[in-house]
Amino acid sequence: MNALGLVSTRLCPGLMGRRSAVNLPSLRFSSGMTLSQIDEEVARLLQLKAQLGGDEGKHVFVLKTAKGTRDYNPKQMAIREKVFNIIISCFKRHGAETIDTPVFELKETLTGKYGEDSKLIYDLKDQGGELLSLRYDLTVPFARYLAMNKITNIKRYHIAKVYRRDNPAMTRGRYREFYQCDFDIAGQYDAMIPDAECLKIVYEILNELDLGDFRIKVNDRRILDGLFAVCGVPDEKFRTICSTVDKLDKMAWEDVKKEMVNEKGLSVDVADRIGEYVSMQGGQDLAERLLQDPRLSQSKQACAGLTDMKLLFSYLELFQVTDKVVFDLSLARGLDYYTGVIYEAILSQTIQAPVSTPAEQNGADEAGVSVGSVAGGGRYDGLVGMFDPKGRKVPCVGVSIGIERIFSIMEQKAEASSEKVRTTETQVLVASAQKNLLEERLRLTNELWNAGIKAEVLYKKNPKLLSQLQHCEETGIPLVAILGEQELKDGVVKLRNVASREEVDVPRVDLVDEIKKRTLLS
Amino acid sequence: MNALGLVSTRLCPGLMGRRSAVNLPSLRFSSGMTLSQIDEEVARLLQLKAQLGGDEGKHVFVLKTAKGTRDYNPKQMAIREKVFNIIISCFKRHGAETIDTPVFELKETLTGKYGEDSKLIYDLKDQGGELLSLRYDLTVPFARYLAMNKITNIKRYHIAKVYRRDNPAMTRGRYREFYQCDFDIAGQYDAMIPDAECLKIVYEILNELDLGDFRIKVNDRRILDGLFAVCGVPDEKFRTICSTVDKLDKMAWEDVKKEMVNEKGLSVDVADRIGEYVSMQGGQDLAERLLQDPRLSQSKQACAGLTDMKLLFSYLELFQVTDKVVFDLSLARGLDYYTGVIYEAILSQTIQAPVSTPAEQNGADEAGVSVGSVAGGGRYDGLVGMFDPKGRKVPCVGVSIGIERIFSIMEQKAEASSEKVRTTETQVLVASAQKNLLEERLRLTNELWNAGIKAEVLYKKNPKLLSQLQHCEETGIPLVAILGEQELKDGVVKLRNVASREEVDVPRVDLVDEIKKRTLLS
Repeated sequence: MNALGLVSTRLCPGLMGRRSAVNLPSLRFSSGMTLSQIDEEVARLLQLKAQLGGDEGKHVFVLKTAKGTRDYNPKQMAIREKVFNIIISCFKRHGAETIDTPVFELKETLTGKYGEDSKLIYDLKDQGGELLSLRYDLTVPFARYLAMNKITNIKRYHIAKVYRRDNPAMTRGRYREFYQCDFDIAGQYDAMIPDAECLKIVYEILNELDLGDFRIKVNDRRILDGLFAVCGVPDEKFRTICSTVDKLDKMAWEDVKKEMVNEKGLSVDVADRIGEYVSMQGGQDLAERLLQDPRLSQSKQACAGLTDMKLLFSYLELFQVTDKVVFDLSLARGLDYYTGVIYEAILSQTIQAPVSTPAEQNGADEAGVSVGSVAGGGRYDGLVGMFDPKGRKVPCVGVSIGIERIFSIMEQKAEASSEKVRTTETQVLVASAQKNLLEERLRLTNELWNAGIKAEVLYKKNPKLLSQLQHCEETGIPLVAILGEQELKDGVVKLRNVASREEVDVPRVDLVDEIKKRTLLS
Repeated sequence: MNALGLVSTRLCPGLMGRRSAVNLPSLRFSSGMTLSQIDEEVARLLQLKAQLGGDEGKHVFVLKTAKGTRDYNPKQMAIREKVFNIIISCFKRHGAETIDTPVFELKETLTGKYGEDSKLIYDLKDQGGELLSLRYDLTVPFARYLAMNKITNIKRYHIAKVYRRDNPAMTRGRYREFYQCDFDIAGQYDAMIPDAECLKIVYEILNELDLGDFRIKVNDRRILDGLFAVCGVPDEKFRTICSTVDKLDKMAWEDVKKEMVNEKGLSVDVADRIGEYVSMQGGQDLAERLLQDPRLSQSKQACAGLTDMKLLFSYLELFQVTDKVVFDLSLARGLDYYTGVIYEAILSQTIQAPVSTPAEQNGADEAGVSVGSVAGGGRYDGLVGMFDPKGRKVPCVGVSIGIERIFSIMEQKAEASSEKVRTTETQVLVASAQKNLLEERLRLTNELWNAGIKAEVLYKKNPKLLSQLQHCEETGIPLVAILGEQELKDGVVKLRNVASREEVDVPRVDLVDEIKKRTLLS
């Protein structure tokens, strides 16, 4: 998610080309020239260049998707649909509505919400009009939506793509365009009840997706802030120390300590005190013990966080999810807007990265999220108020499921398994064994469509029966309705089961019912 | 979808502002300045302006979505889901797979595909790296996908948002971010069979959406080109005359003729000859008649188009859709990539625009798409070849359903009807009539979730029974499971039907089955 400062300092070839085009001495490019005139001139020149083409007179396209993005082919879409169905069912089971927001927001809507990560935001080109940026997550647009519509309570989910100019590691499911599946509860409620439901939801989804063992780490911003205060971290260094602590899931304590002391300027004493706390993990018992801790109990903030943590665990007990949830003081999370409980779910299973490019192997890429993290979230009680003209707050808590990693795992599972993924739902292919029956095939296909049957017909005048049967084998169509002169005369259709090769004559009037009956069972 | 030339000749207010900013006399704006430097300078000034902000020293956010875009609230989403379900079911009934592509493409992928409309493409800011643009439709990304993956035949649908910097007319369902629902058939097949299926699909979808009467106009690029040739239009003017013809659905012939003669420089004779043809409408008979037309039959191209038109209508007859399909020689469609059959579906019903801003009322805004157009498409046999390094062609035909207008109509229908749109699917609310039963409510809710029941519980320690019942009334939850001391003792739950107010004690072990039974029926 970070360490991309470097990227923007490099000039790409495209930019160079554009620059030299404008600097052509023959161009009258004076202060009297407006931007739109420049745009027109540039467009004209580029068009000219395109017409002149490559030196061979033919323009060669670069056939690729933008860096860090990918197409989904039909098989991947079938898997994606399955994953979405599980997630959406869970969100609906918990009574959520859904909303949608535009893919871009006014640039200033996103400004000041993401701390250091703001540099990863994609901006749109200024083509006259508003300055726009692609959404970086679904949380900030949600808060903008609430403030704009003066909504004070809602439980909503939102599944959509978000955009980060991050260093991609695609074999491990890290992209610049990726889906987030967000569930959030906004409203003034009694403490920790909505928070506990969010954790229940993560638990249910990861269970149902059947991705192997997982853990959900929980912490609280107030506990972290209190901890930093009592350990002697100066106020202005809370954020930066917080982001150093966040690296504990992929760096040893010794290295984290070094960063605190050498780079962030903490004294060794202070760092060691922090080290004691952030190595702690537990449950309700740990929260109770820390409430008695002579140092930590000095912080009002920490006590508030710990009291809520106790309450949270009592609800998690009722929701029967404490076997996977751990109170972990090293969990920090980067985003600026969290104010209370924070959490992150980690799969025990790791994603295999069979092919990884040298660029993906470098260290900078490892920074960001720990390899197995598939969900995260927390409480952000101040964000909506940042948008409200009168600063009215709407307390919010939510969770975001990061499904690209989940897709990667599911794809690997599908590859490994022998079961074929169907990409269509076609129930029957209308075929013929003889020539000159195209019209009859189309007529029957039309009858089936009109009756709601999923039917296909090959777009050839006289296809061979074999190629029609092969199409069924390849795409998993279970039935073939075969027409011939004799069948037409007799008012029947030969219905063939592709798997068993059984054939039976079905009266044409009964065909729809017979297909429905057979495909309901399969 | 067409004749958008007019829109771009107007300058929008945003552009004007940009212009004056750059012309500030204090700016050193010389021929040595590159475009990116100009962009940076403009951004810097705007940021400065934003920081100066309101004069009160407090930054005030503009609480809005980007121009021409909108949020979807839960009610709109419920309608959207219904529309999508109908459309997707139809696509699946016809055996389509689905794919997805990134929201942005390399800029050069889109270059040269949209003719005059290219100026409506959204570009991303150059932040170092590739030059990117938001997709303008789903057809060009589809062609890029086919060429990139060397796919020579596929039947796929793709539902996703596309982006056009067009002049929005939101009350009439015209946005800058809008959904397209595309169905395309790629592959070398016998003439007109896939083309006929695309028209069948439009027919089915518009029927099922129940939007009132509609017509589907059909024409062929080859017929138009042949017609222009035999009428004496110079080759280089085909495209521009084509876009003038396309205005016939909203301009009188006299005005179209004036444009041809005065602006495009045709002689009156040539224009009159065109006028004779483009007033013609019919079916298979018209195609037959025109094949005998002494002038038109001189064009090989026109004859090829007319012969295919005859064949197309014979298949449309088999598909029982000829009651709505009209061969209309005035249909032109703007996009450059069409090579054969083209079509457009028009609703007879018009969208009411109860509130329209002055900007939306001006004439220029009317240019664009005819008011009732909700689907369009055609054959584009050359597009994939433009991407293939060796120019290998993959013949394609497809249709795009423009559902924003359909949403607008459905929303108006929902407003007008008394039936309430539910935005959640919750089956039961777990409630209590007494205090101090939060834990028991959470426990029961957890049991229901675990059994797959869609259940909610209010996030309050001691909510009033009345407010719990009100929540059900407001959101349409049909059942309430009420817990009290007595019920807990007896091992029962009081199950209340919200509509009838009937209450019955159900043994706790039977509760899940009882809820399933009742909500299956409702």
